[in-house]
Amino acid sequence: MTYSVAVSGASGYAGGEILRILAAHPDIEIRTVTAHSNAGQPLVAHQPHLRSLRHLELQETTPEVLSGHDIVFLALPHGQSGQYTDALTDTALVIDAGADHRLETVADWDRFYGGSFHEPWVYGVPELPVGGGVQRERLVGASRIAAPGCNASTVSLSLAPGVAAGVIDAGDIVAVLAVGPSGAGKSLKPTLLASEILGSANPYAVGGTHRHIPEIRQALRAARAAGVPDAPIRISFTPVIVPMSRGILATSSAPLVEGVSDADVRAAWESAYGDETFVQLLPAGEFPRTADVLGANTALMGIAIDRDAGRVVVVTAVDNLAKGTAGAAVQSMNIALGLPEDRALTVNGVAP
Amino acid sequence: MTYSVAVSGASGYAGGEILRILAAHPDIEIRTVTAHSNAGQPLVAHQPHLRSLRHLELQETTPEVLSGHDIVFLALPHGQSGQYTDALTDTALVIDAGADHRLETVADWDRFYGGSFHEPWVYGVPELPVGGGVQRERLVGASRIAAPGCNASTVSLSLAPGVAAGVIDAGDIVAVLAVGPSGAGKSLKPTLLASEILGSANPYAVGGTHRHIPEIRQALRAARAAGVPDAPIRISFTPVIVPMSRGILATSSAPLVEGVSDADVRAAWESAYGDETFVQLLPAGEFPRTADVLGANTALMGIAIDRDAGRVVVVTAVDNLAKGTAGAAVQSMNIALGLPEDRALTVNGVAP
Amino acid sequence: MTYSVAVSGASGYAGGEILRILAAHPDIEIRTVTAHSNAGQPLVAHQPHLRSLRHLELQETTPEVLSGHDIVFLALPHGQSGQYTDALTDTALVIDAGADHRLETVADWDRFYGGSFHEPWVYGVPELPVGGGVQRERLVGASRIAAPGCNASTVSLSLAPGVAAGVIDAGDIVAVLAVGPSGAGKSLKPTLLASEILGSANPYAVGGTHRHIPEIRQALRAARAAGVPDAPIRISFTPVIVPMSRGILATSSAPLVEGVSDADVRAAWESAYGDETFVQLLPAGEFPRTADVLGANTALMGIAIDRDAGRVVVVTAVDNLAKGTAGAAVQSMNIALGLPEDRALTVNGVAP
Amino acid sequence: MTYSVAVSGASGYAGGEILRILAAHPDIEIRTVTAHSNAGQPLVAHQPHLRSLRHLELQETTPEVLSGHDIVFLALPHGQSGQYTDALTDTALVIDAGADHRLETVADWDRFYGGSFHEPWVYGVPELPVGGGVQRERLVGASRIAAPGCNASTVSLSLAPGVAAGVIDAGDIVAVLAVGPSGAGKSLKPTLLASEILGSANPYAVGGTHRHIPEIRQALRAARAAGVPDAPIRISFTPVIVPMSRGILATSSAPLVEGVSDADVRAAWESAYGDETFVQLLPAGEFPRTADVLGANTALMGIAIDRDAGRVVVVTAVDNLAKGTAGAAVQSMNIALGLPEDRALTVNGVAP
Repeated sequence: MTYSVAVSGASGYAGGEILRILAAHPDIEIRTVTAHSNAGQPLVAHQPHLRSLRHLELQETTPEVLSGHDIVFLALPHGQSGQYTDALTDTALVIDAGADHRLETVADWDRFYGGSFHEPWVYGVPELPVGGGVQRERLVGASRIAAPGCNASTVSLSLAPGVAAGVIDAGDIVAVLAVGPSGAGKSLKPTLLASEILGSANPYAVGGTHRHIPEIRQALRAARAAGVPDAPIRISFTPVIVPMSRGILATSSAPLVEGVSDADVRAAWESAYGDETFVQLLPAGEFPRTADVLGANTALMGIAIDRDAGRVVVVTAVDNLAKGTAGAAVQSMNIALGLPEDRALTVNGVAP
Repeated sequence: MTYSVAVSGASGYAGGEILRILAAHPDIEIRTVTAHSNAGQPLVAHQPHLRSLRHLELQETTPEVLSGHDIVFLALPHGQSGQYTDALTDTALVIDAGADHRLETVADWDRFYGGSFHEPWVYGVPELPVGGGVQRERLVGASRIAAPGCNASTVSLSLAPGVAAGVIDAGDIVAVLAVGPSGAGKSLKPTLLASEILGSANPYAVGGTHRHIPEIRQALRAARAAGVPDAPIRISFTPVIVPMSRGILATSSAPLVEGVSDADVRAAWESAYGDETFVQLLPAGEFPRTADVLGANTALMGIAIDRDAGRVVVVTAVDNLAKGTAGAAVQSMNIALGLPEDRALTVNGVAP
Repeated sequence: MTYSVAVSGASGYAGGEILRILAAHPDIEIRTVTAHSNAGQPLVAHQPHLRSLRHLELQETTPEVLSGHDIVFLALPHGQSGQYTDALTDTALVIDAGADHRLETVADWDRFYGGSFHEPWVYGVPELPVGGGVQRERLVGASRIAAPGCNASTVSLSLAPGVAAGVIDAGDIVAVLAVGPSGAGKSLKPTLLASEILGSANPYAVGGTHRHIPEIRQALRAARAAGVPDAPIRISFTPVIVPMSRGILATSSAPLVEGVSDADVRAAWESAYGDETFVQLLPAGEFPRTADVLGANTALMGIAIDRDAGRVVVVTAVDNLAKGTAGAAVQSMNIALGLPEDRALTVNGVAP
Repeated sequence: MTYSVAVSGASGYAGGEILRILAAHPDIEIRTVTAHSNAGQPLVAHQPHLRSLRHLELQETTPEVLSGHDIVFLALPHGQSGQYTDALTDTALVIDAGADHRLETVADWDRFYGGSFHEPWVYGVPELPVGGGVQRERLVGASRIAAPGCNASTVSLSLAPGVAAGVIDAGDIVAVLAVGPSGAGKSLKPTLLASEILGSANPYAVGGTHRHIPEIRQALRAARAAGVPDAPIRISFTPVIVPMSRGILATSSAPLVEGVSDADVRAAWESAYGDETFVQLLPAGEFPRTADVLGANTALMGIAIDRDAGRVVVVTAVDNLAKGTAGAAVQSMNIALGLPEDRALTVNGVAP
């Protein structure tokens, strides 16, 4: 069968990437694309790279326009999804690429976002270890899915196997990410102008203020297998915008638990991801580059054990718009619908 | 008086930057530029931006050619300086921009470099706190100076005030650096090709193998004031090449020592750098970008205290070729010769 | 049926892109990948983005290794294809991504390349107007195909409709191209280092020496419909390397023939490309960006008629590795084999 | 003596570059910096690279604030200078970095800009040939100076010697420029976002609509020596934004006049620029890169004579903010005031 789809926020970066991936999906008919201030214009006026969708026109984002489809993707600024989700009760599958349905506690929401709290939906990172199992199981047949924050899922995937296996200490995690500006969306801010970012590395949200921090803590807490003690999870998190349009290179580290062997460490990650298609562990001594996953749904990961520093260092490359957002959303959709998980998704990056 | 200068390695990036800065120095006559395989060619064939030096021709790098100048700059691959320094005993001032005279112990040299060990020279990072004083004092009148490794001095400057004051724990330092490829020199390696680096973030020397690690440990050990306990210094260090020709953005963090107040932390850095011209602390909540220091001799620094993570995070921007190498060398030269410390050096970056 | 394929030059950029596209082709089995100095190593050591092909090992490029496949792609430096093509007489389809079989005259070959001349093969630019028809017709059933030079096909596609229709004067063409460095291959030259190209625009082959010039002249000569006079074709051609890994933005112009209306001009291009999938004409007043076609097989084109300057200006964006080389090769293969022309090829770019 | 200076538009890119250059000028005291919406904030909030000026606060741009200085620089959007210039009648020297005082005819102004026409001021491109002389002569003692458009002066300097000498035909000029986005100013437009420009080449103002076209025509008309016929000047002009923050690489060509020898061509440019400090001609066969002039006041130029194409091709690299705008302004100021022309200006670029 063919599923009809509406994509809101279709003139933005996340919406555009959802459309790019769905355009190659044989089971999907992209019926409706919506936007806010750009409604009434052709989609290609804002997404000139989506040549196969040049017949589509942006409609107003309203509950009426969005309803009546099998699947609705919400790619809206945080705080805006709620008003639509209430009106989409008859829609079989709603996937929110925004933050509104990611956090599990009101306290986290209030501190990092603010405004009305919305109930958490099933988290759309299929490979994530959860309490002895894997998140994929929860996505089967899901009707409401929260796609992850791109930085959050990258760090969570990096460290969850070690936390789950109890080989690293989650109480002193340090993550520094080189990220492309597309993660910040198509916002008209001076700091996102090309002249400011070209030739420069630009930190932001330094010192514990980034909104993806509670999302990581939540995922790592959930990752712990039964029996692993529930100690506090602490994360020093610093994103640095660098001059590449897409990509996240996350360098995440945590103290090695005493007495753990190198083989134990490696085994934790291999048992988590050894059979996965879209989370791939590189051989010892090899580390990924973001170019290797550009446009792909792959999280590519290398692990080092630095005994001098007493830390396990995990370097992970992800395309923030693909595996980080839209790819995760489509992969989760495939699982929810019972389709082959890799449909319309590629493991091969566009490089060089 | 005017000092005559010879610069070896003049066709490389570090040599080129030394020449760019010296070309604007009123007390310096650039008399001789030398190279290895490029000898016999015009300097501008390899440094086309040095328009004011287009009359110079590259000569062979030999002890004979280098001797007879008041000052000699060595900008050679590691392991090559020694053969020249022995022959330059009559030269009043020799400044090595390479690694040969930086490390203090044979053990560190053997582990991270290898080959003949050379005695350490005065370390050319004037603002670095050392045992209650400052490195500048040791540079006055010096005749042999080791310019720093660019990544090393950036991390050392970032954390030394906190280590010196005992407000951070140097036993669990994590430093992740976004760096431009010029730090790797003009080497013909596939990984340094533009096609590989454009649009990509590329980690290297992950897991404790980078050569600047012992240099940082050494500087931080020296920074401790009398009375601060001599606990082991441990550093997780990860450099990531990003698509900008120049620049280092170092995100360095260390655990906050218990009971230390925010004011204590800030005071440690302010007392170290409050009067410095070329190491500038930004107001609380502000952080630097590498573009702000491009071409300048400035290390620009922002500090965050993340109590949730229990860490002090220092973000420092440096131009790897300027303040990181050639600027530090010329600043050290000015001090050694008794010239105004800022002669030929600028605090203003070229931005955007 | 499934066709077995061997790709030589598989560790280079053109070879890598052929593999990336073929990896998604349902009728193709990539059986053999070969290289020269890198033989014996895993393919992913040189193409780390080709995650789905990580089981493949590079073999030596020899006639023996290449023979025995249904299809062989040659992605070798110019002058090296000949030795293999002689040995591949039994191979049903050979596609050369190099220059050896592109030029039709010994004079052009001797002047721009030199060495042994090889007979021209069918030129692999399906949409190119040729003498009243279209190049596609010649590719049906072809057994030997010369994939185009990326810059050449971009300029030829830009202007051929106007030349064919006689609305522009091919005697004073000016083409200036902003190109990514991947077009120059994975060569270890100082001028291709990231430090040299980041933040800089770099011209090369200025003044009529670029090897793609005779290829353009040849294509435009062939484009002329019967009855259009055979006046000399003259091209001023300047490529400028800019800091993007992939992409060609060609700004090509030629004098407007007197008495030709704006509608005549637009009609020439619309009649040539109006029904094409992979060569798309933008509405009047719109012009393409290279990001819009990254990874896609699309040539995206905008036309301006500048009556003050007396010129028709055509701006065309192409991914040099995709539509410029590997995409053209696979598209031509599809035609030759009677497969759907767009199989494994996408019109949508990866943006932003 | 020390001249007091006010700079309006100090939070923008042109204003910032004027300040960067003046900060190193021994005869200048930067007394006042003004802005519009950013008034009341520290200058470094908007120009964080101007570390030596961190004591300055942005004041409101009003005639009252600007008056009372020896020199006023206007770096405002076009159409806004007029209101201030009327009020600055007592100011000894006013330099407009905007367009308001560049064009000589109302017709050109109305067609390309619109709004009130302002009288032309002395054009601030000192090296430009004018009617047998050089523009510098007109700048001596000037009290009102119009700094050039960056693209305009680059193309005008490229071709004026050939036009002046009558060796090229100005009736069919083609100029294609690779330009950095800083030339478009700090405008909050989607097309100027980093995500849109990174990894992409982006044409704009295609087909004869760019505002710098009449400025070039005017300069080339003025360049003609007595006796060179006054034929129409026609220019096809296409700027392409490429991913570098600064820089212009202009590829300009014009038909070679029949019977002119290669030596004649070269002599035209050498006689124009052979003695110039800031316009430098490269040896035959060499061409400049924009990195070579980053931050410098140098226009670096290479010339090719392409007899096959029948064109002279001039490739010129300029830093759009330095020699293209602020450098030209300060150089013109130096001449007007009788100071050494190169004061505070450098010929050496910051590379790599």
